[in-house]
Amino acid sequence: MKLKKLSEIAAGELSGSPDIEIRGVAPIERAGAGDLVFVLEEKFLAPALSSAASAIVAAPSARIGGKPAILARDPRLAMARILPHFTPKPKIKHGVHKTAVVAESARIGKRVTIYPFVYVGENVEIGDDSVIYPSVTIYDNVTIGKRARIHAGARIGVDGYGFVWHEGKYEKIPQVGAVVIEDDVEIYANVCVARATLGETRIGAGTKIDNLTHVAHNCVFGQHCAITALVGFAGSVTFKDHVSVGGMAGFNGHITVGENTVVMAKAGVTKDIPANSVVSGFPAQEHMEEMKYQAALKRLAKKSE
Amino acid sequence: MKLKKLSEIAAGELSGSPDIEIRGVAPIERAGAGDLVFVLEEKFLAPALSSAASAIVAAPSARIGGKPAILARDPRLAMARILPHFTPKPKIKHGVHKTAVVAESARIGKRVTIYPFVYVGENVEIGDDSVIYPSVTIYDNVTIGKRARIHAGARIGVDGYGFVWHEGKYEKIPQVGAVVIEDDVEIYANVCVARATLGETRIGAGTKIDNLTHVAHNCVFGQHCAITALVGFAGSVTFKDHVSVGGMAGFNGHITVGENTVVMAKAGVTKDIPANSVVSGFPAQEHMEEMKYQAALKRLAKKSE
Amino acid sequence: MKLKKLSEIAAGELSGSPDIEIRGVAPIERAGAGDLVFVLEEKFLAPALSSAASAIVAAPSARIGGKPAILARDPRLAMARILPHFTPKPKIKHGVHKTAVVAESARIGKRVTIYPFVYVGENVEIGDDSVIYPSVTIYDNVTIGKRARIHAGARIGVDGYGFVWHEGKYEKIPQVGAVVIEDDVEIYANVCVARATLGETRIGAGTKIDNLTHVAHNCVFGQHCAITALVGFAGSVTFKDHVSVGGMAGFNGHITVGENTVVMAKAGVTKDIPANSVVSGFPAQEHMEEMKYQAALKRLAKKSE
Repeated sequence: MKLKKLSEIAAGELSGSPDIEIRGVAPIERAGAGDLVFVLEEKFLAPALSSAASAIVAAPSARIGGKPAILARDPRLAMARILPHFTPKPKIKHGVHKTAVVAESARIGKRVTIYPFVYVGENVEIGDDSVIYPSVTIYDNVTIGKRARIHAGARIGVDGYGFVWHEGKYEKIPQVGAVVIEDDVEIYANVCVARATLGETRIGAGTKIDNLTHVAHNCVFGQHCAITALVGFAGSVTFKDHVSVGGMAGFNGHITVGENTVVMAKAGVTKDIPANSVVSGFPAQEHMEEMKYQAALKRLAKKSE
Repeated sequence: MKLKKLSEIAAGELSGSPDIEIRGVAPIERAGAGDLVFVLEEKFLAPALSSAASAIVAAPSARIGGKPAILARDPRLAMARILPHFTPKPKIKHGVHKTAVVAESARIGKRVTIYPFVYVGENVEIGDDSVIYPSVTIYDNVTIGKRARIHAGARIGVDGYGFVWHEGKYEKIPQVGAVVIEDDVEIYANVCVARATLGETRIGAGTKIDNLTHVAHNCVFGQHCAITALVGFAGSVTFKDHVSVGGMAGFNGHITVGENTVVMAKAGVTKDIPANSVVSGFPAQEHMEEMKYQAALKRLAKKSE
Repeated sequence: MKLKKLSEIAAGELSGSPDIEIRGVAPIERAGAGDLVFVLEEKFLAPALSSAASAIVAAPSARIGGKPAILARDPRLAMARILPHFTPKPKIKHGVHKTAVVAESARIGKRVTIYPFVYVGENVEIGDDSVIYPSVTIYDNVTIGKRARIHAGARIGVDGYGFVWHEGKYEKIPQVGAVVIEDDVEIYANVCVARATLGETRIGAGTKIDNLTHVAHNCVFGQHCAITALVGFAGSVTFKDHVSVGGMAGFNGHITVGENTVVMAKAGVTKDIPANSVVSGFPAQEHMEEMKYQAALKRLAKKSE
């Protein structure tokens, strides 16, 4: 593929010969002649320039010397646009694999792909163009929107953890609610999303949830949230739109997090967080405040030496 | 269903007309005419009273005005009792799904339900009325009691993590012990319970373990413990009866936790904990003590500003 | 089996009659006549001596009185060597279980065992003598070495979590890299190993990863690392050889950890760690330093009382 063509795909500015032939993409440390590499952070510019790659993708401010380049305002976006052109199309046949077990009452959309060993319960709906990877379990009464990707081993609609202590033992509270997953959601491997006790657990459109995260009953997440791996939610947490959560953070029940808020890795959120905040620590607080706590402790420890 | 009948089911006191017809249960924010709603916390009383619900379930102390109500000493228990009357019976046929793979040596009790893609190894016993959800793996030499519920993707009896460092590499210690899960245990999705190295890993009767928790080899849990999601145990942790653990807490190996103790979310327990304690923090200590530490740090940070 | 024979297997020194007949191994608290027990920590010596066991395995320094014993420099290693002689060989037939779904392009080595409900994607290679337990998912373009053990529900090669924020939503960055798992690796249940965005995610020879751990895209681990349960990695973490990680520790992206380093449980590692370190806390620092911080906070809290 010609470098010029790729610069158009990436909506970037071409620097160097338009006719350079790009045969593949590669990590910088492995790039050879014919490869294109991506400079996503400034520290990778020097190794990229000295690599054998035929051309680089970098930010417009990068000092590229004479290296052929596509200069793109957002090199990461350029990468997202260029990679599909070098990726072999997976040999997926749409449809339900013959080993999958799908309830008759389930409504499966168009061009849906259901991999082996998927279980789909009663009264489930899966929207057009969604992909359900191997060994996913979808319990009864779950609605999944369009273009969803549910990775291997995710469990959608497992009972919420609800018990009442009575006469020396736990009595189960029936979990009779639903799960609704809106359009364009991606749920990664082995994630668990519990059904609501009553009502619904909801994952807003465009939200992405990384591996091994636990979403409890009655959580309601807004649109375009980014929740990374091993995050834990107690019941009835509400996220407004575009909340970001770092790995291994945890949330007490019945908390609301405002829009555009960032919760940093390993934070423990114990109360409502307003919009546009950045919080960290346990109990979580404004990140700048948390930094002061850590600095004060450091000074104290040094003084005691 | 008449309100009077429901008040009897809930063992509550009826306030208002006994003949009110209840057609469903609903979350407060979605309730309409014909619905019954549950006031589990006082802050939900006002919205419940102003909702369109035909009646509410609340504590006897609630000021319900003229709203028809079932007054129940424990509204959560009332909920547990009432919900089954509004839940469609799932279309489950007892027995082993034809896709499940069950060793010939396995002993399966009466009225057991084994969903698709379940693997049951050699010398496994599953007690009467237990339900094994899709894609569960039960390794060899596991005993599961009566009325157990093992949710999708749980792995029972996986090898313990046991190695010895020898001549520059790890040599595996064979994991030849068993797992015993007593009656009335509920294990949620994707939980891992490791087999004992020697002897047994044991989950006491009535204990409930939420999604994505890891129970290491040779842990022995008493009866009626409540362990929530993403909790981690190193080997040989002993719990006496009725221990409660918040999400994402962790336990060093060879620790004993006394009965009725509460371990709060994200705590890191590094030593034995006596009965009837409430502990938090890392390293975990009495919660009141931990609060003092946090307060002292806060004062220090404020002073340094 | 004669005690003498077992002492040879364990490369230990025999104390007592060589002809003592050992019929089984047992945990100390359950040992009876004919049993051999293992004293792995000094505190277990007294109970072992007073147990009904016919003989013990202990360190050469142990004061065993007249109890028949195998004295072994490393009793844990002796245990690893002796246990296989008392373990019934599992009835495993090598080969691919008929329920497994394996792509035609996959290359499966000799004496490989693939359990039920395993999915193996396109362009996968599995080395000789490896065991893939039930319900494992191996996505496309994954290489697994010899003598690997991949436990139930592990997901190898799931997409990395890579998105770019563009015009109010997340656009997916195609994840076109691979996963390479070298020889003698053991990966426990429900672990997730993400494929590289470009290039490869690599798990070095002899490395062991316990249940429910998340390994993100482009992580590269050296040989003989020991990573315990519920550990979380962001992308592109590099481990040199023989790094050990305690449970629930977490790692920021693009960090390098030097060889022989120990990261303690629940640590949060935010920057590069040199070789031969022991680190703990969040942000993680030298463990001795972290201990000073904790001591200083304790003194402060006591003073404020």
